[in-house]
Amino acid sequence: MEGTMKVAVMNGIGKMGYTTRPIPVPEDEEVLVKLEYVGICGSDMHYYESGRIGDYVVEPPFVLGHEPGGTVVEVGKKVKYLKPGDRVALEPGKTCGKCRFCREGKYNLCQDVVFFATPPVDGVFQEYVAHPETLCFKLPDNVSTLEGALIEPLSVGFHAARQGDAHAGQCAVVFGAGCIGLVSMMALKACGVSKVYVVDIMEKRLEKAMELGATGVINASQEDVIEAAKRITGEEGFDLAIETAGTEITTNQAIEVVRKGSNIVLVGYGKTGKMNLSMSLALDKEVTFKTVFRYRHIYPMAIEAVAEGKVNLKGIATHIFDFNDIQKAMDESVKDKARIVKAVVKIAE
Amino acid sequence: MEGTMKVAVMNGIGKMGYTTRPIPVPEDEEVLVKLEYVGICGSDMHYYESGRIGDYVVEPPFVLGHEPGGTVVEVGKKVKYLKPGDRVALEPGKTCGKCRFCREGKYNLCQDVVFFATPPVDGVFQEYVAHPETLCFKLPDNVSTLEGALIEPLSVGFHAARQGDAHAGQCAVVFGAGCIGLVSMMALKACGVSKVYVVDIMEKRLEKAMELGATGVINASQEDVIEAAKRITGEEGFDLAIETAGTEITTNQAIEVVRKGSNIVLVGYGKTGKMNLSMSLALDKEVTFKTVFRYRHIYPMAIEAVAEGKVNLKGIATHIFDFNDIQKAMDESVKDKARIVKAVVKIAE
Amino acid sequence: MEGTMKVAVMNGIGKMGYTTRPIPVPEDEEVLVKLEYVGICGSDMHYYESGRIGDYVVEPPFVLGHEPGGTVVEVGKKVKYLKPGDRVALEPGKTCGKCRFCREGKYNLCQDVVFFATPPVDGVFQEYVAHPETLCFKLPDNVSTLEGALIEPLSVGFHAARQGDAHAGQCAVVFGAGCIGLVSMMALKACGVSKVYVVDIMEKRLEKAMELGATGVINASQEDVIEAAKRITGEEGFDLAIETAGTEITTNQAIEVVRKGSNIVLVGYGKTGKMNLSMSLALDKEVTFKTVFRYRHIYPMAIEAVAEGKVNLKGIATHIFDFNDIQKAMDESVKDKARIVKAVVKIAE
Amino acid sequence: MEGTMKVAVMNGIGKMGYTTRPIPVPEDEEVLVKLEYVGICGSDMHYYESGRIGDYVVEPPFVLGHEPGGTVVEVGKKVKYLKPGDRVALEPGKTCGKCRFCREGKYNLCQDVVFFATPPVDGVFQEYVAHPETLCFKLPDNVSTLEGALIEPLSVGFHAARQGDAHAGQCAVVFGAGCIGLVSMMALKACGVSKVYVVDIMEKRLEKAMELGATGVINASQEDVIEAAKRITGEEGFDLAIETAGTEITTNQAIEVVRKGSNIVLVGYGKTGKMNLSMSLALDKEVTFKTVFRYRHIYPMAIEAVAEGKVNLKGIATHIFDFNDIQKAMDESVKDKARIVKAVVKIAE
Repeated sequence: MEGTMKVAVMNGIGKMGYTTRPIPVPEDEEVLVKLEYVGICGSDMHYYESGRIGDYVVEPPFVLGHEPGGTVVEVGKKVKYLKPGDRVALEPGKTCGKCRFCREGKYNLCQDVVFFATPPVDGVFQEYVAHPETLCFKLPDNVSTLEGALIEPLSVGFHAARQGDAHAGQCAVVFGAGCIGLVSMMALKACGVSKVYVVDIMEKRLEKAMELGATGVINASQEDVIEAAKRITGEEGFDLAIETAGTEITTNQAIEVVRKGSNIVLVGYGKTGKMNLSMSLALDKEVTFKTVFRYRHIYPMAIEAVAEGKVNLKGIATHIFDFNDIQKAMDESVKDKARIVKAVVKIAE
Repeated sequence: MEGTMKVAVMNGIGKMGYTTRPIPVPEDEEVLVKLEYVGICGSDMHYYESGRIGDYVVEPPFVLGHEPGGTVVEVGKKVKYLKPGDRVALEPGKTCGKCRFCREGKYNLCQDVVFFATPPVDGVFQEYVAHPETLCFKLPDNVSTLEGALIEPLSVGFHAARQGDAHAGQCAVVFGAGCIGLVSMMALKACGVSKVYVVDIMEKRLEKAMELGATGVINASQEDVIEAAKRITGEEGFDLAIETAGTEITTNQAIEVVRKGSNIVLVGYGKTGKMNLSMSLALDKEVTFKTVFRYRHIYPMAIEAVAEGKVNLKGIATHIFDFNDIQKAMDESVKDKARIVKAVVKIAE
Repeated sequence: MEGTMKVAVMNGIGKMGYTTRPIPVPEDEEVLVKLEYVGICGSDMHYYESGRIGDYVVEPPFVLGHEPGGTVVEVGKKVKYLKPGDRVALEPGKTCGKCRFCREGKYNLCQDVVFFATPPVDGVFQEYVAHPETLCFKLPDNVSTLEGALIEPLSVGFHAARQGDAHAGQCAVVFGAGCIGLVSMMALKACGVSKVYVVDIMEKRLEKAMELGATGVINASQEDVIEAAKRITGEEGFDLAIETAGTEITTNQAIEVVRKGSNIVLVGYGKTGKMNLSMSLALDKEVTFKTVFRYRHIYPMAIEAVAEGKVNLKGIATHIFDFNDIQKAMDESVKDKARIVKAVVKIAE
Repeated sequence: MEGTMKVAVMNGIGKMGYTTRPIPVPEDEEVLVKLEYVGICGSDMHYYESGRIGDYVVEPPFVLGHEPGGTVVEVGKKVKYLKPGDRVALEPGKTCGKCRFCREGKYNLCQDVVFFATPPVDGVFQEYVAHPETLCFKLPDNVSTLEGALIEPLSVGFHAARQGDAHAGQCAVVFGAGCIGLVSMMALKACGVSKVYVVDIMEKRLEKAMELGATGVINASQEDVIEAAKRITGEEGFDLAIETAGTEITTNQAIEVVRKGSNIVLVGYGKTGKMNLSMSLALDKEVTFKTVFRYRHIYPMAIEAVAEGKVNLKGIATHIFDFNDIQKAMDESVKDKARIVKAVVKIAE
């Protein structure tokens, strides 16, 4: 498809704009996708506010956005399974396929990954993108491209659930009721976990957790979390904890409230990079800490879970902005982190 | 509780009768349970028809029945958690707690197990039984003692699902739509498996499978199973198979229809003890065969799954017989194996 | 490196010859290897004797050989780690890196694999080969290219050990004392297994097993295997069995002699593709059958084990033939399967 | 065996003495063991110096010592396998066999454990002890009762290795070259790990590590640990780390020097109970933290490893004190922690 496309770019800290670029040409094993919805992730906001995350520094103009859903409009010569008209969710990281991590199936740890919206690699707040067929997952008829865009954060939740060996019969707890906390809660339930409690300090978020299917909630601003855990689980403790808030307080609470021999899955990043943790208690309980870096092999099961109605992904998308309002979308997302569970940019119908 | 109780006994092949025995006295760590429902298992029928299973030979009078649900009426001195009035499902095997298998958590393999209705140990077609507290699992309010009785076969299904590492996103197949096939199908779904197909040759059973939640069925008397599998899964094959029919044909079909690298869980016993299997194909696909002997650590999660409404256990209990009709219960069960998914004896209200 | 090279070809069943071909030119990510030793595998013999294995049919002229060791003489533009002069073991299968199996780390199950000496892909009984750098593993100074060639069969042994979850403290048994049985025995020991017994019916082979480090042997032509197992392990049975003989008899013996809950690893292919197995006993013991198709992620650990002196790989190479005697090499290998543990063709010094 | 025995007691902080008590009478499933060697553990020293560890408070007179080896002199009525004259290593914790942890095979987490020398349960610095047969492991002829005593700390090392999924081909690092660091190093090697480096700040200890089989050492007082790790492993990092020093510094070094996706096993307790750790880096690398509380199912494999000569356990026992010098034994152990790898009290020949 020849022609040009509209691209939203970050021109500096707090400054969004638009530019025009050629529509990309898919390589032999790629498809060209007309994007419809792209979610705004916490990392997008972080780049927008501060221009960097650790060693990754934005050089403007830079394209944010790595949670895309859209429709295939053209396919490369060697594309086997997809065809124009197929609606897809795009997994944003292209990995090398050759390094030790790729060969061992842990491709999320590939050093040579090319990941949307991770400097210097541009993201996808734009009308089209060419992407390898193997990273474009076809959506069933009953899953929309809005939901397709949100498969990306949901995949983090599923990867957390799987890292924690979540399974039927467990009583789990999730710390944090932001977007990742909520998708983790829903992923746990889709993995058969019996009861999932959610801890946060904001009532609004906890109401959202209940709306999306949490078994119960603990408002840590009103109740002692350890006491609440005892009330819920008896002396034994939760079978599994997923920590998404990224604070020392919640991570230490997780150590306190899980039962001996259980898994704590760490998803949330702290502000300083360091956390002061109750490690002696963790050793006494022989707790395992699993950690989460993105996800691997998750898109198909996440899409399937949405198709089956096990995960209410639409319920996450609390705010939808028009592509023409990208500045507003970013500004409001940054300003109102507490209220906005997930903002999504609508690129096209 | 002093007094006597009514006990149904097998007096010989095909001959049931009643006798009177003292109500057992619970030891310090035991509870006395007034039984309400006891399911009839395939092994009960087998003893009834032929007087033996392998080296286990019935010496009449012998008490059959090992799938019990009832209400606690008395507790031993050291009982900690249960109290009179608690309704419970009884796990039928008392294990030694000291052997290598018990210590390693595989107590179902304990050599010194004392298991209801496995000669020379009597079963529980009787009004009361004393049983260790640790093997009596309290039922939530919304789970009946009829369902409690059926936790035993359901546990086989859950153990099969867990042996097979069943998880979200998979497309599985179950061979056999008898009681164990059906509970396996429901356990797979409760473990988050996305799609579960059931294979049998009897339409009635397949209808039951659909009624209980199967994604689809394959009637092997009308359709080639391998072709049907291709239709459903494409060239790739099922992610997991559970074999409950116990035939060479279905086991070889399982090898044919699973994808490379997957698990086949063998639950069904063949008639001769031997099976002629396509092992070269299994090696080419690097299939793993897991096997199932009873279950371990399953009762709590099985009860939980019923309480949550994930498993329709009542739907399994197609026939309920009065305790006074024990001869009829056994005779009809044996005669009509195809039609009766699960018969249950109602000992008391 | 321009020029031509000598290539040994199979011109028909039982007919070897030579031809001349251009020295291959390495692609950007490939290295050119001057081959020094190439082992003769059972599958080479099978193609040589019968012209086919299952659906894989030899179209002459065809090049056999897939167990190569040699020295890098030229490197492609994008080669990062290897340089001319490096001695290497070559893993013979090029996989796609994109399919589900590759992405999940089970690349040995890749459908699109290009594997040396598997029709229609030529093998490496020839002077040079160009091969991806990622599949050429550098040998430490104390590992020869003769040993490098034998890393291939050793990798099957290590994969078997790992499939069986071999670990310290176990008492294991290996059925078959041919090349694969012997490397499995050595791999088990390198994985920390305490005791490894080997079963065969030929005294010579069992002597070899003892020479290479077996804890003990059972000559099944002179002693009842089940009795011998009881003598060795008491009633409990072996903790792990690896079956490499590919017969119904030995596979059933494996089921008999392992302890409850253990793993049996199936490596050997039977002649007919089918085996009549004691499956009821396997279920009673809740045995797991793991199977082996080639290997994955094994070369580095296998090379390391040889370098550390944990595996006596030279002891396997009982017969070395000159490249000019390829007909004789094949003929004797085929004729004298019992005596020749492993024949190796010396392509160059 | 009637009569009295000599018992060493802690009469207060820093005060040892002796008393006389009746020789215990073994219960039906117990054996009476005449103790020969009992090791002094860090926890013994801790109680001796400060009178408590956390909530466990010494009430004098209290018997220390939980690392015993000796000879069976009498057996209870139901003892099956042991007989007088058998030399044994004693696993010090009696667990309930009934709780969830015991039933699931994680008996080291049993709440109701009765563990030697953990207040209020007395230890075994005394001439005899009655102990369950199932916790007394027979020593082969080539393993002494001195080594038998040291099976206890070695078991911690093996449990650490197993928690970390140690296996053939890995390059591992152990932080701390005290007793537990050294046994961890040796356990890793016995599990097939190819290379094990040891980090400490005391040259003497590192010399001991080399003497006992370490591949290499890093003296952190002379060399930057992260630089040293790069020198050894290249950019990739160690495949596995075991932390036994119990400091923030070493735990953070472990996070720095392991490769992505690897396991860090935490064994050492910190002084304050808390550690300030580089958790963001841990998440970026998707590291797993496993923790160690005592051990489970380890004695047989640890004894086997000593019998096979894979572990030089005698090399750990740097100081042997006579039972009559118990005060000196405790005082010197406490004073000279750096120099004394492991002190053992010789109770009898």
